[in-house]
Amino acid sequence: MSSNSIEMEAQALCETAQWCARRGWVPATSGNFSVRDAHAGQFLISRSGLDKGQMTVADLLVLDTAGNVVRGPASSEVGEPSAETALHVVIYRDRPEAKAILHVHTIWNTLIGTRFVGAGLFKITGYELLKALDGVATHEQHEVVPVLANSQKYVELSARLTECLAGNAGVHGVLLSGHGLYTWGKSVEDARRQLEALEFLFEVEGRRIFGS
Amino acid sequence: MSSNSIEMEAQALCETAQWCARRGWVPATSGNFSVRDAHAGQFLISRSGLDKGQMTVADLLVLDTAGNVVRGPASSEVGEPSAETALHVVIYRDRPEAKAILHVHTIWNTLIGTRFVGAGLFKITGYELLKALDGVATHEQHEVVPVLANSQKYVELSARLTECLAGNAGVHGVLLSGHGLYTWGKSVEDARRQLEALEFLFEVEGRRIFGS
Amino acid sequence: MSSNSIEMEAQALCETAQWCARRGWVPATSGNFSVRDAHAGQFLISRSGLDKGQMTVADLLVLDTAGNVVRGPASSEVGEPSAETALHVVIYRDRPEAKAILHVHTIWNTLIGTRFVGAGLFKITGYELLKALDGVATHEQHEVVPVLANSQKYVELSARLTECLAGNAGVHGVLLSGHGLYTWGKSVEDARRQLEALEFLFEVEGRRIFGS
Amino acid sequence: MSSNSIEMEAQALCETAQWCARRGWVPATSGNFSVRDAHAGQFLISRSGLDKGQMTVADLLVLDTAGNVVRGPASSEVGEPSAETALHVVIYRDRPEAKAILHVHTIWNTLIGTRFVGAGLFKITGYELLKALDGVATHEQHEVVPVLANSQKYVELSARLTECLAGNAGVHGVLLSGHGLYTWGKSVEDARRQLEALEFLFEVEGRRIFGS
Repeated sequence: MSSNSIEMEAQALCETAQWCARRGWVPATSGNFSVRDAHAGQFLISRSGLDKGQMTVADLLVLDTAGNVVRGPASSEVGEPSAETALHVVIYRDRPEAKAILHVHTIWNTLIGTRFVGAGLFKITGYELLKALDGVATHEQHEVVPVLANSQKYVELSARLTECLAGNAGVHGVLLSGHGLYTWGKSVEDARRQLEALEFLFEVEGRRIFGS
Repeated sequence: MSSNSIEMEAQALCETAQWCARRGWVPATSGNFSVRDAHAGQFLISRSGLDKGQMTVADLLVLDTAGNVVRGPASSEVGEPSAETALHVVIYRDRPEAKAILHVHTIWNTLIGTRFVGAGLFKITGYELLKALDGVATHEQHEVVPVLANSQKYVELSARLTECLAGNAGVHGVLLSGHGLYTWGKSVEDARRQLEALEFLFEVEGRRIFGS
Repeated sequence: MSSNSIEMEAQALCETAQWCARRGWVPATSGNFSVRDAHAGQFLISRSGLDKGQMTVADLLVLDTAGNVVRGPASSEVGEPSAETALHVVIYRDRPEAKAILHVHTIWNTLIGTRFVGAGLFKITGYELLKALDGVATHEQHEVVPVLANSQKYVELSARLTECLAGNAGVHGVLLSGHGLYTWGKSVEDARRQLEALEFLFEVEGRRIFGS
Repeated sequence: MSSNSIEMEAQALCETAQWCARRGWVPATSGNFSVRDAHAGQFLISRSGLDKGQMTVADLLVLDTAGNVVRGPASSEVGEPSAETALHVVIYRDRPEAKAILHVHTIWNTLIGTRFVGAGLFKITGYELLKALDGVATHEQHEVVPVLANSQKYVELSARLTECLAGNAGVHGVLLSGHGLYTWGKSVEDARRQLEALEFLFEVEGRRIFGS
């Protein structure tokens, strides 16, 4: 994939956020979306409390790689990063290839996350759609999605996410129990394709497991 | 949140009604939506029998705080308040901070309501989306949603709702068995965010409990 | 409800057909919609094989009360009434108040119909939405929806429908097993409101009964 | 059905692809759509990796009946046929009447396919919508949908599909386990109507079988 400008990627991020909103994947101002500006050593992230169905580039904050605000949103609304920004910082630091991060709350990722938090992971195999995940060439892939317990202590949660990413080199996303999915990709388009594949697989597996 | 004008809030109420209609949450002219005009000591409420997907400000009646009609709808349709108006009167009286009330019939709030009316309440805990409810700061919140038996005797039902609100200071909504959810907020936006969060949680819990 | 002109009712019928199509209630050209022109002693009905999402008044045939074609559709497509027209004839004959008939195939009416065809009927009680049915004033209504076995022999099926309507004075709709719902009303608007209420109740009851 | 020009059929194919995308039936760039140009001894097929919600005729490649690329897509995107093209070649060769082929990944065809791959087939009977399948005149039809194990070895998979089509003269579609449905028709419209009917039946049967 050719490298898109940060302006194009920011626009693609907003379109993806609105697309998620139409699917009901970011209810009640939940969810979080960001894109890395590798050239500037920064990333752009949706402001807290925003209805993602309305998200435009004017709602994006600019943060440095440590998560400090460089520039607030251009929109007239008050804007600040949400506490979840700390998790974006960890992912951009420990996955240098990641250029975009998508975080959504869906019915099925919530059901899967709360069911498998005890096991600490959810496994998926046997589906052609696994090939939509970066670097996966067969439906026989044994995909692992780590599941972390949720927490409001973001320093502690960031430490657990750091450990998780270090110990699971090949994963394409991480579930927080009762708190949705984080996934990332080499572009907004890649991240979105992986998000759509993972959510499809969560629903198929969820209906199989939960009896519908 | 800054205080919006009553005109802006009435417009936001209509947009929220149409948004509910697109989700199938107000089938067959069900549901009811109102907004308080604190300055005038009145509230505006959707006329009875209206398809909420078509609702505009011209369909709103103006009532005094006792529920008497001050002014009918501006639309050419015949308009009168529904019997459910009595419940809006109780909520505005006993929740002085409430500026908007939303009442919807969804598949999942109906399933939860009829299942838990015997217990008299439904409990939710462990979900990040609980933080979308006013004043809630953690997914560890033990949210209680009271469930009242339905009745066509609105005087008696109003008395039970009065008792329920007096005995449950912190609740964000009340279910009527087989008759949907009432929720309210400090603005239309707040009430809508809470509605979306509660409905998401009803669906997740409903699928977990009912086996899908 | 004031009496609408047949032109207005035909237009409302087409809008209702398209609305059903958007909900996935008339898959694969299934379903059938008609409106009575009482003044002319005729009724208008959708031509066979039509994608109902595209239905306009030009797709309506004019039939006499015995089901004979008086005038084909104005659209350039070949048009003839479907075999199901015989059932519309029965309903208009035996329910003089009926001005519109809607027939749809939904996931939930199909599941309910095939499950309860042995019992011959499906009962619904305890839901506020029952009040959306004509003449029903309380959720305590014990609504009966007869369920007939499906058949390709429309003469025989018409006879059974005739018997069913004669024996069940108060019903608002009839299910054919594996073949969807027929409902009717004093206007297109009334029939549509009843359709939406019945489908909501089929889904709620279906999820309760089938374990999701 | 009158014979449409290849230009009209290619346009209808793109509209069908977008319609599938709106239903969530081609997630994460999955799915594949083609139309036969019988006059030229060629077929047109969607390029690999395309978001089918954006598909236009400029995204179609022209292939000869052996699956060799005659002309790439007119769109500026890089385009090549996907590995699944081999299966289209088999169907066009062994079903001379087929003019269009649709391949989609849905929640319910995936659940049905993975559940019944051991049996090698899925049977459907008793539904009126079976009459939407070409040549079927009654709901008493015993429709068989073969289910093949998935494979990344397309030569081997093509051989098994060839054998399957030879041994099942009357089938209207074939499931690949965990890899969706292939269906075809005498026109795009016919294939789409059959697709919609089969997917409706998979969902009804799936909810019955899986407990919801």
